[in-house]
Amino acid sequence: MTGRAPAPFTAADHRARMERAARAAADAGLAGLLVAPGPDLVWLTGYAPTAVTERLTLLVLTADRDPVLVVPALEAPDAARAPGAPALTLRDWTDGKDPYAATAALLDAGGRFGVSDNTWALHLLALQRALPDSTYASLTDVLPMLRAVKDDAELRLLAAAGAAADRVFEEIRTLPFAGRRESDVGADLAELLLRFGHAQVDFTIVGSGPNGADPHHEVGDRVIERGDMVVLDFGGLKDGYGSDTTRTVHVGEPTEEERRVHDIVRAAQEAGCAAVRPGAACQDVDRAARTVIADAGYGEYFIHRTGHGIGVTTHEPPYMIEGEEQPLVPGMCFSVEPGIYLPGRFGVRIEDIVTVTEDGGRRLNNTTRELVTVD
Amino acid sequence: MTGRAPAPFTAADHRARMERAARAAADAGLAGLLVAPGPDLVWLTGYAPTAVTERLTLLVLTADRDPVLVVPALEAPDAARAPGAPALTLRDWTDGKDPYAATAALLDAGGRFGVSDNTWALHLLALQRALPDSTYASLTDVLPMLRAVKDDAELRLLAAAGAAADRVFEEIRTLPFAGRRESDVGADLAELLLRFGHAQVDFTIVGSGPNGADPHHEVGDRVIERGDMVVLDFGGLKDGYGSDTTRTVHVGEPTEEERRVHDIVRAAQEAGCAAVRPGAACQDVDRAARTVIADAGYGEYFIHRTGHGIGVTTHEPPYMIEGEEQPLVPGMCFSVEPGIYLPGRFGVRIEDIVTVTEDGGRRLNNTTRELVTVD
Repeated sequence: MTGRAPAPFTAADHRARMERAARAAADAGLAGLLVAPGPDLVWLTGYAPTAVTERLTLLVLTADRDPVLVVPALEAPDAARAPGAPALTLRDWTDGKDPYAATAALLDAGGRFGVSDNTWALHLLALQRALPDSTYASLTDVLPMLRAVKDDAELRLLAAAGAAADRVFEEIRTLPFAGRRESDVGADLAELLLRFGHAQVDFTIVGSGPNGADPHHEVGDRVIERGDMVVLDFGGLKDGYGSDTTRTVHVGEPTEEERRVHDIVRAAQEAGCAAVRPGAACQDVDRAARTVIADAGYGEYFIHRTGHGIGVTTHEPPYMIEGEEQPLVPGMCFSVEPGIYLPGRFGVRIEDIVTVTEDGGRRLNNTTRELVTVD
Repeated sequence: MTGRAPAPFTAADHRARMERAARAAADAGLAGLLVAPGPDLVWLTGYAPTAVTERLTLLVLTADRDPVLVVPALEAPDAARAPGAPALTLRDWTDGKDPYAATAALLDAGGRFGVSDNTWALHLLALQRALPDSTYASLTDVLPMLRAVKDDAELRLLAAAGAAADRVFEEIRTLPFAGRRESDVGADLAELLLRFGHAQVDFTIVGSGPNGADPHHEVGDRVIERGDMVVLDFGGLKDGYGSDTTRTVHVGEPTEEERRVHDIVRAAQEAGCAAVRPGAACQDVDRAARTVIADAGYGEYFIHRTGHGIGVTTHEPPYMIEGEEQPLVPGMCFSVEPGIYLPGRFGVRIEDIVTVTEDGGRRLNNTTRELVTVD
């Protein structure tokens, strides 16, 4: 139901990830990790419940015992079919029983635990009540890079998702824009993502004319006109791993100003990618892209960070933002996506997924970054 | 992108809901309510962000000021278009700024707050850090009945969703079952829900033969055979409100035992519905249904609670379960869905949504509860 295709990982892969996570937790001084349904659980165990409800499902990773998945009895048969299940002990609980007491019994009463970011407050508050001397930190705060460094199999899946997104762009640029609504083009993008192998569409942004100046505008009813700049930003999950790419196209011939703004963003994106290498800090990528835009006089119109990580989600650490001193490590994957947004007029953004290699960065999106004109 | 059609409620409706919620919070001794994206936020404000990310969006309801929505700057234009936005003050924040400090400044530093169940632990932990003397309780723990009593407009929407689900059953029972996979019938159910006006399909359970004995089995590759019992449980959101109904059908003529088990479940469901009236406790509904099944000797095979509330979600308080002493109030809506699950053999479940009236209960699902045979 989630559209999340199973990734081709084995129980041994998941066991290794869980062992690595437990070790990282111990190294960070934590008594363990508590992981609710969501991307961390998918990555660690391959398990994604059909629906996330108020019933507690929680992976307990501690140094002193094998991984335990606390799971509602009704969902236990489903959990038992997860790729990582052979590496887990399932501890099921039935309606009317207290799953927090059962979970607390697995934990060091005075320990400090990392808890997955998207764990419901309902569950965290109940654990805090069950173990008043325990303390908690968000998994991203304590182990932000847990999923950030991708292994070779993950990189292949991310590259394949990127290549599929590139095929979407090659196709969409041949279709008519003028006279159609943003929502029509958005529907085309979604259909193409699915056609080229995505199981889940996460976003299809079509920001035409003034709508392009709102970086989070999705699609609207606006009819695209000749003379519009159109920001196209789309992605989703293919075989469990994400794509996310942006190109800005022009309907017919651009003005000189439009061309100039696009050139600045292209140079900024190039500079951001060029700053990617092992040992550089995340903020260096942001600075490299931002400096180009600021030097061109458009600094106030670049109103978001330069990038975000990607993996089993389309949006995760590391973040390319001022203040993020995390050094880049080979295998990290993230977007480089500077933009210029001129309120009420138009926007330009160019985005590729980039992975850190031994000596630099490699783009996973490779369509042209020249300003493409469409009809 | 969420498939959640806007409910036909005005800013005045949302203002009244927020005032009611703030009053209920004060009555419960709380300094305020903190509501993250999800069903509570939809109900209170009509706002559902396109994607829920690590960026903080939080509604702050306190007695001493008008409602404030803390929202990422990039998403503020979208939030400003929400039906309830005229009743809100938007407080936006840009990447790199600390939204928790900004939120904390709105709060009583030593106060106790109700926080929506599905608020991310990431956010709760940051607020606990920003305001070390504050305390928190889950919204469902402190105000479980906040959304439970539906007004007339909500009841009309729930009745319409129920009627649409009934049309789905009337249609699916005419289609062939034998020789098709569960997943094929599930796809039919999803398509029919959409055809009859649903914007979002939440679940399509097709449990044939032994799969029917797992109450949370969704759909599988199993080919349905002549002689199978088949549990059909489906629902979703239509115009922002939920449907959820179950009928169990038989492919060809049932055996005497199958007929008897179905009769017991039907009597249990009838008894559960008959127990619905103002002032009865939620657990009375569970007891009424459970007693019938236990008396017939199948008590150990009814392995879940009897029902759950429904509204802007398909799954919410109140719960019809032993120990829930909450009295029923006119306007509450919930499922009554007893079942018998015979491991390795078959399952039977019958489910209607019921609303509490001034003098009893009224079903929002009205297809036959006789055992229907299909081809």
